[in-house]
Amino acid sequence: MLDTILRVNMNNLSARQDKLTDTYQYLAGRALSSRLLFDEVPAHCEPLGPKNKLIFTCGLLAGTTTSCANRLSIGAKSPLTGGIKESNAGGIAAYKMGRLGIRAIIVEDIREDEAWYILLISKDTAILKPAEHLRNKGLMEKASILYREYGEKIGLILIGPAGEKRLLAAGVANNDTNGVPSRYSGRGGLGAVMGAKHLLGIVLDDTGCSAPAAHDPQGYVQIVREFHKMLLSAPQTAEIFPKYGTAAMMEITNNLGGLPTRNFQTGYFDGAGKINGDALYQTITERGGEGTPTHACMPGCLIRCSNIFADKTGRRVVTPLEYETLSLLGPNLQVDDIDMIADVNYLCNDYGVDTIEIGCAIGVAMEAGVLQFGDTDAVRDLMRQVVEDTYLGKIIASGCVVTGKVLGVRRVPAVKGQGMAAYEPRAIKGTGVTYATSAMGADHTAGNVARANLRHDVKDHQVSASRNAQIGMSLVDALGFCMMISPGLKSRDILAEMINAYHGWKLTLQDLEQIARQNLNLEREFNAKAGFTKIHDRLPEHFYDEVNPATNSVFDISETDLEEMLF
Amino acid sequence: MLDTILRVNMNNLSARQDKLTDTYQYLAGRALSSRLLFDEVPAHCEPLGPKNKLIFTCGLLAGTTTSCANRLSIGAKSPLTGGIKESNAGGIAAYKMGRLGIRAIIVEDIREDEAWYILLISKDTAILKPAEHLRNKGLMEKASILYREYGEKIGLILIGPAGEKRLLAAGVANNDTNGVPSRYSGRGGLGAVMGAKHLLGIVLDDTGCSAPAAHDPQGYVQIVREFHKMLLSAPQTAEIFPKYGTAAMMEITNNLGGLPTRNFQTGYFDGAGKINGDALYQTITERGGEGTPTHACMPGCLIRCSNIFADKTGRRVVTPLEYETLSLLGPNLQVDDIDMIADVNYLCNDYGVDTIEIGCAIGVAMEAGVLQFGDTDAVRDLMRQVVEDTYLGKIIASGCVVTGKVLGVRRVPAVKGQGMAAYEPRAIKGTGVTYATSAMGADHTAGNVARANLRHDVKDHQVSASRNAQIGMSLVDALGFCMMISPGLKSRDILAEMINAYHGWKLTLQDLEQIARQNLNLEREFNAKAGFTKIHDRLPEHFYDEVNPATNSVFDISETDLEEMLF
Repeated sequence: MLDTILRVNMNNLSARQDKLTDTYQYLAGRALSSRLLFDEVPAHCEPLGPKNKLIFTCGLLAGTTTSCANRLSIGAKSPLTGGIKESNAGGIAAYKMGRLGIRAIIVEDIREDEAWYILLISKDTAILKPAEHLRNKGLMEKASILYREYGEKIGLILIGPAGEKRLLAAGVANNDTNGVPSRYSGRGGLGAVMGAKHLLGIVLDDTGCSAPAAHDPQGYVQIVREFHKMLLSAPQTAEIFPKYGTAAMMEITNNLGGLPTRNFQTGYFDGAGKINGDALYQTITERGGEGTPTHACMPGCLIRCSNIFADKTGRRVVTPLEYETLSLLGPNLQVDDIDMIADVNYLCNDYGVDTIEIGCAIGVAMEAGVLQFGDTDAVRDLMRQVVEDTYLGKIIASGCVVTGKVLGVRRVPAVKGQGMAAYEPRAIKGTGVTYATSAMGADHTAGNVARANLRHDVKDHQVSASRNAQIGMSLVDALGFCMMISPGLKSRDILAEMINAYHGWKLTLQDLEQIARQNLNLEREFNAKAGFTKIHDRLPEHFYDEVNPATNSVFDISETDLEEMLF
Repeated sequence: MLDTILRVNMNNLSARQDKLTDTYQYLAGRALSSRLLFDEVPAHCEPLGPKNKLIFTCGLLAGTTTSCANRLSIGAKSPLTGGIKESNAGGIAAYKMGRLGIRAIIVEDIREDEAWYILLISKDTAILKPAEHLRNKGLMEKASILYREYGEKIGLILIGPAGEKRLLAAGVANNDTNGVPSRYSGRGGLGAVMGAKHLLGIVLDDTGCSAPAAHDPQGYVQIVREFHKMLLSAPQTAEIFPKYGTAAMMEITNNLGGLPTRNFQTGYFDGAGKINGDALYQTITERGGEGTPTHACMPGCLIRCSNIFADKTGRRVVTPLEYETLSLLGPNLQVDDIDMIADVNYLCNDYGVDTIEIGCAIGVAMEAGVLQFGDTDAVRDLMRQVVEDTYLGKIIASGCVVTGKVLGVRRVPAVKGQGMAAYEPRAIKGTGVTYATSAMGADHTAGNVARANLRHDVKDHQVSASRNAQIGMSLVDALGFCMMISPGLKSRDILAEMINAYHGWKLTLQDLEQIARQNLNLEREFNAKAGFTKIHDRLPEHFYDEVNPATNSVFDISETDLEEMLF
């Protein structure tokens, strides 16, 4: 069950289904995408060239309605970082993959002609179909067309115009339980890899399919019930996330002096009260209409940290509005206008670019004086330029490192080419350690430490906290679970129990953690073969030399300490 | 003699003269700039940040009128490559440094305020003077103003607007025997480093100075006479270079299928006859006026490979018009219009950008379809955009790698971030080996093999040919000589003899070669500490996978063979 690998070649337009070999038996999600990349892609290859592969994987419980178990992982050598990349998202695509029995889709080679395709996967077939009619259309329109053609129930994985243009901030979206294609594997420029392959989208039609029955149906139901009870008994997962979503984080980071403000110049934003979790909740509930503060992006999700943000007339603007976006398009630009943030978020989603990378890039452009910090009209105009594909727009959509290069800015908040998420690393040093040492580049989802129970602005214990977080995330990612379960997960053993009951395996938690650690080492080894060294496991210079005024601290985790990051 | 180091700090505006310590006694030119960088600059530092230093050095015979002995070396950590950089040029600045007794100028720290400076060096003083009046002015105008202020006889080292904007293709120019500031240390973005330091220029006033007398005056005169005779007795240095300049190379490379054409798609250009050495000579001589095919850029140069190119009315357009520029703004763009090339060359010189990097970047933009190959009007317009600092202009002036990233192009002719010079590496594989393995990035001046006596399109002997060329260039660069002496240099021993007679030393050629080899290893070690690995010693993927149609060859020097590059 869930044992098919679909291999598609964009050059000869072939599609082939193979059974998963024993080597990969226990691997899924990020562990499978990274392992396949390691095994099949030359580490030094050109990311937009024919040797790179784009890999879609689901988790080990994909296709079931177990809460939080249907993350879609996408992997490739990243054109943004030059290293290995996995970026995962909620939505329904992985659920559909599970019901289709496909654990991995491997897309090979590229096209340089004028032909563009979609990959249509249904119960018995997988074919590439010409799709010129979708070219240069926003994600919303692409999805509408495909719903008309293939019905409303399909799963969709899509790139926007940004991916087609191979812009380095381009992400890959899939659709959610409401059919909105805004669940982003946003990081690392994976949309550009898909664009280089001339693959505009994947349609997952699971008509006639169902999730394979569990190996031990009764046992599975029972253990999943226990898992759900666990999630519903923790305050974070039962109350806070459903109400405030990920935006609940903003009060925490702002209080820690760790909310990136004005291109990461400082970590405290006095306008946070207008855009934090509470403000978001109040705004959504007061406006009513299509908005809702509580929304499940994946089938069966009990945490429902997603939301639908509506404008003053009650019409949906964007779904979801999340912490990273609120922060990087908000405080990082000195903006406290929640409607501007939502509008720009919508444009990012429809054009197909990562809001984190765009937020970092606009912050850098502000530091360069292209526009002023706090100028919401200028941000709106700049985002229009991104969507209209002006050269300034192209620069921004190439990410913050390229933006810094073109504009001559030395304070660029990035590691390994990728912009930082919304945790200021001098204030929240454990997440800074993750930024520095993760093979993924600056990425909170690689191991966020902001909720850990330690003092965040001192250097003690940060390396071990980051290590634990990175291993934990690698575990969650390897199983296809959502990171939002973590606060409610009193014991990780239950993860092994669910997997075993479903698949009839006898894995211990230690086995799974071993897979998680091995994967972290394998990702590092890929990067080493791609040319990364310990020198790349550092933050940008200015975080060591200039204090975050909100905490009066610099990033002072030594190179030697960072080198102790062993999995 | 020639034993002063001038150390300038742009933050506290201090300038201090120290005696050269014994450690550096025998080092000059590139060997000195690289050694100082190695000793004083953290390899992982941000190139545009306060820890990088910009270092100007002259050769061991600087200040004398010995032919070809007055190259100016400029070194820094490169913002273009992220590695160590030295780029040298002719002109009169190093001659003035020699007469002032200064072997190295080290510029430290940066400024981020609105204050900009020039460094004024005269017999007894060195001071930083405010120079806001020079801001944003082209190099020609900057030079005119400074000649008015300090007299016509000064040496000048200047950046243009490109350097002020910290654009990655920005070079540093010095003035020639005619006072024209167009002798470029063009490569590696050194102009951006100078711009980050807010140093607009250096004025070298040698009033009251003279070259120190040789330790053995008679012996020195005699050996220099012999050296000059040697240069005047070789056909290359006595006849071909004075007549055709470096453009003599075009017939050679085109016949080898190694003339980069259409973004390095092929190596043969059928319009080469309109822009090669002969065409250049004919055009210049027919037009007369201010033009001349034979011109010395450095005091005392006998080879005189420089030229002055005049327009149809006989007015000077640019000096010099050289092979690399003719090729990368010509065949590489499918252009055979020598006047367009000269005009664009002038704009590059005045704005302060490297013609090689700009030629590569425009080639990449053509591959992206921004403009068409062969469209001379579009090239002129694009160059105007560079000078007018539009966003497209900024992209181009950020070099070919950034251009490729922003425009989604995978075929970018660069190594370690730097665009290739005008030797197609599948046809002239030895120079390809140099591109791949040099610490400097793709750079013909690091060790060009195009004139070596071997078959260039096969893989045999290329690694050893490149090694010899790299050691030879390191030697010439360490002494402050011009690479153009090489074809006339029947024996290298004479270099040691001149140095010894001048300084009273007893160095053997082997000692000098040891310095040259040590320097190559030291440059590599700097890069290793900056994060470079053997993976970075490769050409871009497509040169291995796609044939050069003019030779039907790919670049097939294996990684293992490249790793045999030991100095």
